[in-house]
Parts: sequence; structure tokens; C-alpha cells
Amino acid sequence: MKHLLSIEDLTADQIHGLLELTDHMAEISSRPIPKVPALRGKNVVSLFFEDSTRTRTSFDTAAKRLSADTMNFSVSSSSVNKGESLRDTIETISAMGVDAFVVRHKSSGAPLQITQWTNASIVNAGDGWHQHPTQALLDCYTIRTALNRRDGFDGLRIAIVGDIKHSRVARSDVQAFAALGADVTLVAPPTLLPPALVNGNSPDWPVTVSHDLDSLLPDLDVLYLLRVQRERMDEALLPSLHEYSALYGLTAERAARLAPHALVMHPGPMNRGVEMVVDPGELPGSVILNQVTNGVAVRMAVLFSLLGSGNDLKETA
Amino acid sequence: MKHLLSIEDLTADQIHGLLELTDHMAEISSRPIPKVPALRGKNVVSLFFEDSTRTRTSFDTAAKRLSADTMNFSVSSSSVNKGESLRDTIETISAMGVDAFVVRHKSSGAPLQITQWTNASIVNAGDGWHQHPTQALLDCYTIRTALNRRDGFDGLRIAIVGDIKHSRVARSDVQAFAALGADVTLVAPPTLLPPALVNGNSPDWPVTVSHDLDSLLPDLDVLYLLRVQRERMDEALLPSLHEYSALYGLTAERAARLAPHALVMHPGPMNRGVEMVVDPGELPGSVILNQVTNGVAVRMAVLFSLLGSGNDLKETA
Amino acid sequence: MKHLLSIEDLTADQIHGLLELTDHMAEISSRPIPKVPALRGKNVVSLFFEDSTRTRTSFDTAAKRLSADTMNFSVSSSSVNKGESLRDTIETISAMGVDAFVVRHKSSGAPLQITQWTNASIVNAGDGWHQHPTQALLDCYTIRTALNRRDGFDGLRIAIVGDIKHSRVARSDVQAFAALGADVTLVAPPTLLPPALVNGNSPDWPVTVSHDLDSLLPDLDVLYLLRVQRERMDEALLPSLHEYSALYGLTAERAARLAPHALVMHPGPMNRGVEMVVDPGELPGSVILNQVTNGVAVRMAVLFSLLGSGNDLKETA
Repeated sequence: MKHLLSIEDLTADQIHGLLELTDHMAEISSRPIPKVPALRGKNVVSLFFEDSTRTRTSFDTAAKRLSADTMNFSVSSSSVNKGESLRDTIETISAMGVDAFVVRHKSSGAPLQITQWTNASIVNAGDGWHQHPTQALLDCYTIRTALNRRDGFDGLRIAIVGDIKHSRVARSDVQAFAALGADVTLVAPPTLLPPALVNGNSPDWPVTVSHDLDSLLPDLDVLYLLRVQRERMDEALLPSLHEYSALYGLTAERAARLAPHALVMHPGPMNRGVEMVVDPGELPGSVILNQVTNGVAVRMAVLFSLLGSGNDLKETA
Repeated sequence: MKHLLSIEDLTADQIHGLLELTDHMAEISSRPIPKVPALRGKNVVSLFFEDSTRTRTSFDTAAKRLSADTMNFSVSSSSVNKGESLRDTIETISAMGVDAFVVRHKSSGAPLQITQWTNASIVNAGDGWHQHPTQALLDCYTIRTALNRRDGFDGLRIAIVGDIKHSRVARSDVQAFAALGADVTLVAPPTLLPPALVNGNSPDWPVTVSHDLDSLLPDLDVLYLLRVQRERMDEALLPSLHEYSALYGLTAERAARLAPHALVMHPGPMNRGVEMVVDPGELPGSVILNQVTNGVAVRMAVLFSLLGSGNDLKETA
Repeated sequence: MKHLLSIEDLTADQIHGLLELTDHMAEISSRPIPKVPALRGKNVVSLFFEDSTRTRTSFDTAAKRLSADTMNFSVSSSSVNKGESLRDTIETISAMGVDAFVVRHKSSGAPLQITQWTNASIVNAGDGWHQHPTQALLDCYTIRTALNRRDGFDGLRIAIVGDIKHSRVARSDVQAFAALGADVTLVAPPTLLPPALVNGNSPDWPVTVSHDLDSLLPDLDVLYLLRVQRERMDEALLPSLHEYSALYGLTAERAARLAPHALVMHPGPMNRGVEMVVDPGELPGSVILNQVTNGVAVRMAVLFSLLGSGNDLKETA
């Protein structure tokens, strides 16, 4: 594996392999000194064209636990502002010696484009509405661990609720959950569904569509809530956050109708009072902070898979 | 000790203990390679809701000398700007694995509040007008070293001059100096005194109040000048900086009336020409840069006390 | 060598010595783990009063390969904005323990001024129109390596093209290339030449001046293009970028008239379509990315010369 651009590029076996490696990385993270020399001397550069302290910090922590050097290339103070092309910027930083770029960009496909301009590995940390593969992997790892599903998600019932249309998380999660065998239902108002799904099924989306969250609740193993962006109202895709919340928000009443073992997940940051009405700290099934913790271990596994070698693996023992 | 929130939480013995540990940290800082592995693998995150490169750099240097990993959580580019609550932000970063947060916040009590939301240790790096405990400790350490007062400050005469009312430094310093036995006099115009002191003494403030700096000067062991903020004029608390300077500024004439052994201190950044009229580089008694140097050693001692163990202490030998 | 402020401060022998040390640093950079403990415990602080992610990242990478600690003192969030003088800022940061400051400043002479206020070594990373000595050293190293000129540049024909007047790169390059024996020709419209050269030669500039790029091309060993700043048009120093490009831009036609062995260089960031019309990726003689790669090795050599010792040199073996 040279790059991690999309969940579509991974086979189910590769996903399982990354999740097993994540077990190892989670064990390292739980040590008193959570640090191994596996990637010593490797240079991991984060290149975020959209702000995301949360994701950048997670990758940064992951890289440091493997003893890689990290650098945060701040786009706002860079030559990008002097009119330099993205290509020249990438070629220039690469020439200083970079082993991996962690890229977030508002344009779908930017990480793939960047692979043409450098010998470094590229990790897609979110591109437009397209993909966010490490989020999907950490979500799989969280479900696998919390529901003890090491062998796959066969028969697991997962509902993803919210703004599917504009969500790279939904796109990556659907592909990963389905690859592991889960039955995925998308729940959203028609205006927030991808066009391909508004009038029925699509071969690109191995899912069932529903507009009725309440009838699904008792049968779910996992309820996955997406963040609702306030700008969707300005675009007239949502009548009001209040109405959204009434139909799709997780209230205490809805939470009480979940099965006792069911998980509640959210990629963060949450809009309390909108999609998350109940305090998740009160929900026994909430694994939202586990997702954050697992995010570091998954990103360690990804960086190690891209940059490490068999010998390095011994160094993580 | 789990947190360092306020000087009020420390006994005189605990203060003495931290100052003795600071001696050890100062010795480490003077080595050709000023670095020990004591906090290897610990993750220290600075969370500054108010800018302060000076204080943040001091903590950062301290953490690195102890081999901790450091992360600077930039509030301006974080999810705080996407409407995430402070609680969700803290819980999220904590879930990535944080051993200590170094917090500066404009609201008094914010660091205490944050202790409710994380298992990490909290170091208060300045909250509103309330406390700045590491500043007080470095000030104590500077006096202790410069005046050779290892056993305490009994009988030492210290004047703190300036905007006491809005100063967390003054509040913390008064408590620390008094705990070690010093006689503290506050010198300020009535508009810049805390309300409790305007009409006399207060049990909360173990100090004497004076409005006449000149009569005090010859008897002082320590003259501590506070920074005067220009916004106090806009608030009509000061008629003019010029008038302030005439009554309370350290001129060459005033400096000449200090005892030969007396120290001149300032927490920085200085307003030259206002509270500091004379060039402090010309004053034999100025220990203002010693305060900065000692700040790193004191913060090493604090971080080590919160995160280190007996075994780690051997590693600092 | 205590500071690196200007190429003028170096003898030809010292330049040769730094280039030989750079060979060693380039070898370290090519190792699987490009890291040596030579500067462990040294604290290198970058202090950039002008943004330059490119140069700052290069110094940062260099320092990390030598295991120094690095700190980026962000001017925008510092006490400089609270009215603190540059001197107080420098003295304060120095007091925390700094071994070298890497300084970029818009005022010529600022790095020299700073040497008066600290015991740390100062590396000039660009001051006004004055000097950019590490750029000149990396340019020398690139020519030396690409043209196999380890013994000097005797008889080498180098043309520097563009806005000489406002270019610290041109000033430093001319001095370094001439010190090593090259014949340097400056090519520019009269409005972009230093005043001393507009009406003929100047003892300060060991160069020939030409306004006719085309007649020079076939005889050059090195064609060095400078970045043309768009603000020169606003200042009426250039009629239009289009006209500049027609007379001085490197087009495919001009590139075809270069000798097969001739190098094309640029300090970056490039203005494609202005001074660089042809795609440099298509030019066999382009060593522009080599300049970037060599920049890290040269800066390792400079930092090591300033902060390392003979014993440390063994540690780089």
C-alpha cells in the first residue's frame, strides 16, 4: 500500500488487516510510555487546506507515537498565497524530504492529483464530499471492538442519519461497513440524499434508504449521526434546524427505544440541540469518545502500513 | 498534587518543596545538553484562549527539557469556531491521550471548570484577574535565589506597584510572598486597588496599602512593578500614562534611592516610559531576565510534580 | 564562526569549507534514518517577521536532522503586538535558553542589530534587500555538485536575470559566485538595476551588466532567474509583466539556445508565465528542485558550524 486515498481502494481483507494492526497500535497507546521507534527519521507533513484541529491533532499524535518527525505546513502563511501553484508547492516541500503528506482539501480528488507530483505517500484526510477513509476505518474499529465483531459485520444493522449528500464520512462509512458485511440504512430528508438515491437504489450505494427514523430504532445495532451544517438552511435544503431535530435528532425518547446493546456514534464536532438533543454523556451506548481515542490508533496503523517495514514492526513489540 | 490552579491551594511547605525541586531543574537547565527523559511519552497540550507567546514558549521549553511531547492546540483554528462547546472540545482532545493541559483563559475559574471534564492534570497559566500561580512561583524562586533566602521570606519587605485590581500576577504573588513570611505593601492609585482594599484592610489580602511610593523606597528589599495596560485610561481609571509615570514609574531618581541590595522585578512585557522609565539594563538590582530564565525551571518543577514519579526523578539525576 | 549574517563576512576558504561540510550533511540526509545526535539539546528558534514557510521549513528540517529542538516564535501572536520593543523581545526569549536565532526581517541590518542583544548565534534568513547568505551557499553547492566544480568556479559564466535592485538573493549570490571565481553578468531593465550600476561599473559589484539576454544565452554555464514581484508594476518600475516576459522570460525558444550542459536555477517561488514561461519540468538543465533539497543540507552545515563541536562531528559519522 503506497497511498490511502479511498475506502474503495481497499479489499475487505485489507480492511481486516488494518483493523488487526490497529489492535497492536491500541496496545502501544495504552502503555505508560506510548511510544515506539518504528518510524524514526520519517517525515510526516500535514497539509490542511481546510482547518481541522481535531483531525490534524489525531494524525500528529499518531505520528509522534511512532517517533516520526511531524511538520504542519500552514497553508495560510505559505507561498500558495504568493500565487504559487499547488504543484510547485508540493514539489518544493517534497524536495526537502517528505515521506508522507496528510492532505485535507475542499476539492474532491485533490489528494489523488497530488500523488502525481511527489514520491511521498499520500493519506487523504478528507477531500470535498468524496472520501475520509481514516474516519471510516476508525468507525469500523470502534464497532468491531465495542460489539466484539472481530470476524466481520455480517447481519449488523447500521443506520446513518443526516446530511448524506454532502458527507464524505457517509460515503466512506457506507463502503467500509458494507465491505465488512453490514446492512446499512441511510436516513435523511430527500434534499440531503445523493441524487442517485432520491428515486430509488443505485449500484454505487449498497444501502437501503428510509425517511422514517422512528420505525428503525428498535432494530438497530448502530445509530450513526452526522453533523448537520447550518449552511444547509441558507441553501434551502432544510426548512429549519428545529424541524430537522424533530424528525431526525436523537432525543431522550428516541434513545430510550434503542436496543440495550446498540451503539450511538458521531464523527464530531456535534451540534448539540440539533442532531444530538440528548446529552451523549448520559447514553450507555455512546462510543463517541471511543471513536476519538481509536482514531489515533487507526492512524498509527495507516502510517505504519504506508511507511514502515517488517523490521520496524519488531520495533513496535 | 493533581492540578495547579491557584497559589491558595498550596501550603507553605508545598511551595518550599516546589522551589527545592526548581533548584534541581535549574541545574539540569545549565547542563551542556539540558534534557532528561523524566517525562518521556507524556503529552502536554497548551490551550491558550488568550495569546501569550512568552508564557506558552516557557511551558513548551520546560516540557521539552523533560522529554515530554508538546502540542499547541490553536483555539482560532479549532472546532470552538464551529460552535463546539468548551466541554466537547476538552473531552475530544482528552480522548486522544493528554496528560496535562496548560490553560490560559480570560474567564476566572475556567481551568477549575475544565478539571471536571478530563482526567488530565490542569495547570493554570492565567485565568482572568484570578490567578497565575507559576508566575508567583518563579517570582518566589527569583527572590529566594537572588537574596539567598532558602529558609523563607521572614521580614522581607516587598512592594508591588501598579494595577493591582486587574492583576492575576498581583493576586498570586501576594499569596505566595505572604505564605513564605514576607511583609507585602501594595502601592497603587485608589482606582487600581481591589474594592475590598479601597477603604482599609481585608482579611483576603494580607498586605499593607500605600499610595506613596517615594517614602517606601529606601526600606524595600524588592520593588515589583506591574504592567500598566493602556486600556485603563479608556476606562477612566487613569488620568494619563504620563501622570501614572510621574507618581509610580521607576525613574533613575527613584532607582537611586533603593537600597544597594534591593531587587527590581517585572512580569513582562514592560511598558518602557510608563512603569519602567529607567533602562532596567542599567539597574544593578534588576532580576527581570532572571525571572524569565527561572520561569522555565519552575515550570519544569510543576510539570514534573504533576506528571512524574519517584522513578522518573532518578532519571533526572 | 559565531554568526552568519552576510556572504561578505566569509572568505573563499570558509565558503569552500562550508560546502565540503554540506557534502557530509547531504550524505546524512540520504540515509534511511536521516538523523544524527550532533546538536541534541540545542535550541534553535526561528523568528520570522516576514512570512516564508519555504525557508522556515528548510531550517526546521535541517535542525531536526541534527536533533536540535526547534521553536517557531510567531511574531503575529507575540508581545511585539503589545508594544514590546524588539530588544526586549529578544532578551526575553534569549533568557529562556536559545542557542541560535534564525531571523528574517524586512529591515536590512536587523539580524546584525540583534547580535547586540543576545549571546545566541544569529543566522540571517533574509533581511530587506540586503543579504540571504544561506540561499547563496545552497546555490553555490548546487552548481558545484551539478557541474562537478569542487575546486571553484574559475571561468564559469553565470547570468542572473531579473529584479536585481530589490533582491537580497542577487546581492548574496554575486558575492559568493565571484568569491569562488565565476564571471557574473547581471541582466535587467535599467529600472531594476541597483543605482550604482545604472551608469556603469561599481567596485561593490564584481559583475558585468547587460540588457540583452538573447545574445548571452549560448555561452552561459548557469542561467539564474529571479522572481519578479508584481508590486514592481505598481511602482512603475515595470511597464507590464507581459513586456518583462517578452524580453527576459525563459521561453522554450530561449531554453533551446542554452548549451546542453547549462543549468537553469530559480530561488522560488516561481512566477510561471512571467520569468518562467517554459515548464521547468521539461528542461533537462533545471536544478530548481535540487536547490531546495540542497538547501536543507547547507542549513545543516551552517547550524552545525555555529553550534557544533569537534566531538559532535564524530556523532555525525
